[in-house]
Amino acid sequence: MGSLATLFAPERVAVVGASDEEGSVGHAVTRNLLEHFAGSVVAVNPNQEAVLGLSCYDSLSEADAVDVAVVAVPPAVAVDVVREAGEVGVENVVVITAGFSEAGSEGAARERDLVAIAEEYDLNLVGPNSLGVMSTGVGLNATFAPTHPTSGSVSFMSQSGAFVTAVLDWAADRSLGFKDVVSLGNKAVLDEGDFVREWGDDPDTDVILGYLEDVADGRAFLEAAGEVTRETPVVLVKSGRTDAGASAAASHTGAIAGSDRAYEAGFRQAGVLRVETVQELFDAAAILAGQPLPDAEAVAIVTNAGGPGVLTTDAVGDTDLELASFADATLDRLDAELPEGANVYNPVDIIGDAPVERFETATDIVLGDPNVGMAVVLACPTATLSFSDLADAVVRQQETHGTPLAAVLMGGRSTQSAADRLAAAGVPTYFDPSRAVRSLETLAEYARVRERPPAEPTAFEVDRERARAVLDRARDRGADRLGVEAMDLLEAYGIPTPDGEVVDDPAAAERVAERLGDEVVMKVVSPDILHKSDIGGVEVGVPSGEVRQTFETLVARARRYQPDARVLGVQVQELLDTDAGTETIVGVTRDPQFGPLVMFGLGGIFVEVLEDTTFRVAPVGERDARAMLEEIDAAPLLHGARGREPVDTDALAEVIGRISQLATDFPAIAELDINPVLATAEGATAVDLRLTLEEEP
Amino acid sequence: MGSLATLFAPERVAVVGASDEEGSVGHAVTRNLLEHFAGSVVAVNPNQEAVLGLSCYDSLSEADAVDVAVVAVPPAVAVDVVREAGEVGVENVVVITAGFSEAGSEGAARERDLVAIAEEYDLNLVGPNSLGVMSTGVGLNATFAPTHPTSGSVSFMSQSGAFVTAVLDWAADRSLGFKDVVSLGNKAVLDEGDFVREWGDDPDTDVILGYLEDVADGRAFLEAAGEVTRETPVVLVKSGRTDAGASAAASHTGAIAGSDRAYEAGFRQAGVLRVETVQELFDAAAILAGQPLPDAEAVAIVTNAGGPGVLTTDAVGDTDLELASFADATLDRLDAELPEGANVYNPVDIIGDAPVERFETATDIVLGDPNVGMAVVLACPTATLSFSDLADAVVRQQETHGTPLAAVLMGGRSTQSAADRLAAAGVPTYFDPSRAVRSLETLAEYARVRERPPAEPTAFEVDRERARAVLDRARDRGADRLGVEAMDLLEAYGIPTPDGEVVDDPAAAERVAERLGDEVVMKVVSPDILHKSDIGGVEVGVPSGEVRQTFETLVARARRYQPDARVLGVQVQELLDTDAGTETIVGVTRDPQFGPLVMFGLGGIFVEVLEDTTFRVAPVGERDARAMLEEIDAAPLLHGARGREPVDTDALAEVIGRISQLATDFPAIAELDINPVLATAEGATAVDLRLTLEEEP
Repeated sequence: MGSLATLFAPERVAVVGASDEEGSVGHAVTRNLLEHFAGSVVAVNPNQEAVLGLSCYDSLSEADAVDVAVVAVPPAVAVDVVREAGEVGVENVVVITAGFSEAGSEGAARERDLVAIAEEYDLNLVGPNSLGVMSTGVGLNATFAPTHPTSGSVSFMSQSGAFVTAVLDWAADRSLGFKDVVSLGNKAVLDEGDFVREWGDDPDTDVILGYLEDVADGRAFLEAAGEVTRETPVVLVKSGRTDAGASAAASHTGAIAGSDRAYEAGFRQAGVLRVETVQELFDAAAILAGQPLPDAEAVAIVTNAGGPGVLTTDAVGDTDLELASFADATLDRLDAELPEGANVYNPVDIIGDAPVERFETATDIVLGDPNVGMAVVLACPTATLSFSDLADAVVRQQETHGTPLAAVLMGGRSTQSAADRLAAAGVPTYFDPSRAVRSLETLAEYARVRERPPAEPTAFEVDRERARAVLDRARDRGADRLGVEAMDLLEAYGIPTPDGEVVDDPAAAERVAERLGDEVVMKVVSPDILHKSDIGGVEVGVPSGEVRQTFETLVARARRYQPDARVLGVQVQELLDTDAGTETIVGVTRDPQFGPLVMFGLGGIFVEVLEDTTFRVAPVGERDARAMLEEIDAAPLLHGARGREPVDTDALAEVIGRISQLATDFPAIAELDINPVLATAEGATAVDLRLTLEEEP
Repeated sequence: MGSLATLFAPERVAVVGASDEEGSVGHAVTRNLLEHFAGSVVAVNPNQEAVLGLSCYDSLSEADAVDVAVVAVPPAVAVDVVREAGEVGVENVVVITAGFSEAGSEGAARERDLVAIAEEYDLNLVGPNSLGVMSTGVGLNATFAPTHPTSGSVSFMSQSGAFVTAVLDWAADRSLGFKDVVSLGNKAVLDEGDFVREWGDDPDTDVILGYLEDVADGRAFLEAAGEVTRETPVVLVKSGRTDAGASAAASHTGAIAGSDRAYEAGFRQAGVLRVETVQELFDAAAILAGQPLPDAEAVAIVTNAGGPGVLTTDAVGDTDLELASFADATLDRLDAELPEGANVYNPVDIIGDAPVERFETATDIVLGDPNVGMAVVLACPTATLSFSDLADAVVRQQETHGTPLAAVLMGGRSTQSAADRLAAAGVPTYFDPSRAVRSLETLAEYARVRERPPAEPTAFEVDRERARAVLDRARDRGADRLGVEAMDLLEAYGIPTPDGEVVDDPAAAERVAERLGDEVVMKVVSPDILHKSDIGGVEVGVPSGEVRQTFETLVARARRYQPDARVLGVQVQELLDTDAGTETIVGVTRDPQFGPLVMFGLGGIFVEVLEDTTFRVAPVGERDARAMLEEIDAAPLLHGARGREPVDTDALAEVIGRISQLATDFPAIAELDINPVLATAEGATAVDLRLTLEEEP
């Protein structure tokens, strides 16, 4: 158990602001606690004698050995109450009171006080502006919500209190049970990362669910989640995905939203399953809590109705799962057991007159097939079929084989008791086959998270001091935008660059050019000119005889374009045959929540028109760098599509890893674009770069 | 009313094969008819005296004035019964009997007999292998399904009988009511096109729903649907979308599936709303049946809970809809009416303590905003809110303003009576906000179908005889694959091609080249060599002085590569500057169900690696040709992305239209690829083509 064990399993809970007044929060919290809590409840309210039969204490200091103080007093008093809790040694505080950072500058100041007190006394503080916390293990309902959850293995946190109420009301009709429920409120102290870590350590929590509008500390959260998801699935809705949603979220919580691509990338790296809708959230919870993980991704379908069997097959085709191909022995057994007109191939159609026995036989046979990793059993109502008996048979087969299974019962009220029976055994049921298949895909996705290699970033050997010197020199001359003159930075981090030098006179240019071959690339070097090619500041394929003259021309153009530009010289560079390779882009931006975000894509129209890009939160390990290369739509072009030579993906992945390390080592780098990184069969070379430094703090 | 009016509103229905035997189909059909039917029921069975209290006739010929004969006799007898129906003047026959084309070659022969008889007597024949038909207008349940549908304005056809049973069972708990229901069976005579047309003419059908595994006659169906969707929405699930699904469907119905892209394209052209899942099908039905069409696509959201409001906003961002921007007057009114802490901007957060009155006021204000085309009202359970009263208020506001609306009631059982009240008034309710928004999007999609211009193809002036001559000549010399030598075909259809000629000696080549400029393109012309460039059969940029020699070289290469190849000569062609334009591809394939299918995409990697293509069923009118240009991901490249000159999209759309006309005029063209069509600011030119002719029948 983690450090929040007492918060969720206290022996003694005090309600500060307990009240006899119907409709007040203090009344609702006290009543909820009294109704179910296995421990003792203490009422604190200096203005009342007794509340709901409990005699009132005037203050927390009078109540002995309180494990959790629930604070439901006006905001002006709440801070003092929390301080008192700290003074008398209460370790856990749930601040229901609103009127903090969500309510203007006065509230924000109040919240800062709260944080300072929590730090001083090392308090586990939930909220403020929280609906409260629940834990079914000890019957704890320290909220003002009207519904007490049924007991189960799902723990749930929500940044919206209303959403908690809604979900509990909704879940009451269904068989989704909860272990702990937390309304995060303003997350002044405890946040999503703390609860993910806590529930990761909780043997009674099998699935962690969350509704989030932002993540307070992106990197800390990813670190916690990355550890936890190796053992316990974490499924999140993160709202504010779309532009409209993000601005609505900002006005709702006041949070500065990081970019959604950073959330998307970070969650994926940490193994968090991100879903988009409420229905998906609870479908994921039900199957992860109820079914084992699959050891293969091939799905078997057993149905008494051909058409819905085809729909189910389409649903499999929509996922990353595949339709199982049965072993010959399976086909032989099905052939022997099923009547004429049945289809023994997947989807197995046991036809409309099938009684429960035929369903059970067919399910038994396909679950015994070594190729089958998961199954859907689908039944339409017929005169010969009892849904309840079918439920028993399905549960029996699922338990016998230990293969994950979802049921589709294509009817209305007539399926209800069967659905309840299946749900009690952890088998989810649906009317719509596509939801059943999507749920199985969730299981497979989580199985992949468990099985994948760790994401440890490679620690490349680099010359950090040399890189620092490049950045320091830039600072010294007041530059915050760097171009090719900073290629040294890449070299310091072991990223191949074209051979070349920056020179400051024509004779030196000629000397360098001679060494580099028949033709060279020449670029004017000036921190003040960002778009060099636009002003004619780049010449490609300069023959040896024209190097001197070109030096003069480039410098002259730069002066003409911008008389006050500082011209540091001209870069003379080996001419790479770009037609012989594939131009790619590796970039870094900085996200307010997650820090450096590394981008990969192909050059030109691929990034600029098709937006065919992929992102990761740095540090990017080899596993993720390689995955990035495969995720773009244009990936086949890296592997030799249309007669090209396949590029050296090892080298390209290494460039991504080294850039990630550079961006992580130097927070001063606000933006970095290496465009292009020329990938060939022999390696990957950074040809040009642009870099923006943070303004000095 | 259409020609099937009597089928759905008969006065007298005969059950041939009526039976007293419990569990038999003849028994179930007779019982279902007796239970609800407003007309009279006749039992026909030579082996029984009476069935369920009806005295039995020995044959149809003894029963007078039968409007519909339901056939539930063994397959061996069924054909004779249908013939008898024809002979005695019964116009409508529903063949429930199975054992026809779905059951081997004997059954297929039997089905051919059935079709012949139906043609001879001009019968409206449903089935065979059908569950039957229902029509709530007259209480007709001529099926063996156990559930009688409630009355409503949705008519539903299904190629799966089991799916009908499932849907009726499911709908019984919900407020979805039906007008007619048809189990299509094997579609030997009446098919989806007939029912779509019938229901298009039926004033009592507001929405047409279908579950299809194939479409029997693609072009006839699209024609019917194209007319009907201008007045009545048609929503279809077409299964077999995915490769796995298509092969499952083929094994289920024996249908040769057309490509899914043809279905996708054809449905879109005809204005059919295609959905993928059962849930989407019925969500679409509910909102289309219950709500008016929007006159704008901007959505207002009114909520008592910020978090779920953000989720709803995200859902809007996921669709083509937009979040409404309120007029100043609206903001002022909201400001005046809502308490402190509320958010007057969209999504409007009326905060957690909102009573019904505040919901109603806010809804009234936003629905009065001229920018608002649709609305979502979202409520989480709170102590201050009565869901039932809220339902009344929402219905009132929807009816007052006539604006389409969906409700999200985020709770469980506590929302049920409110949901029922709203459903009765046609307002759909959901727990998941994304479904509510998706439903509104369906309304907007259908509004677009109603408003779009007709799809009439332009009839271009072409030289059909000249084109026919090209194809005849190819036939005459036994060629079924043509290349550049068939550019004449394109010219005959008014499609610009590079200037040039096919010549058969070096001197002629030189003469032509001189006329065409400094440099020319030369290609060997042989029907036996498809991949000319692979054998060095194409030379680009041949200077005048080398034309003679190049002629000899090209011919020699062709002979060396394939000694028996017929070399028809060498094409000498104007050299187009491909860098000055954008290479596109226009292609045609032939689909078994829909005929010529026209493809458009950009050349090279766009089609071959990224599969960035779009399709239409020919004939393609201007509306659709233009839409194709916009649908590809790379569309910005046609409009001048990355500093290019925008291409002449009028010309490009015209090429698509003319190719569509060519493919429609000559069914002998099995496949056609114009690659590239070079699009520039000045026009579009077909540079090269490949064409495959159908094998002679």
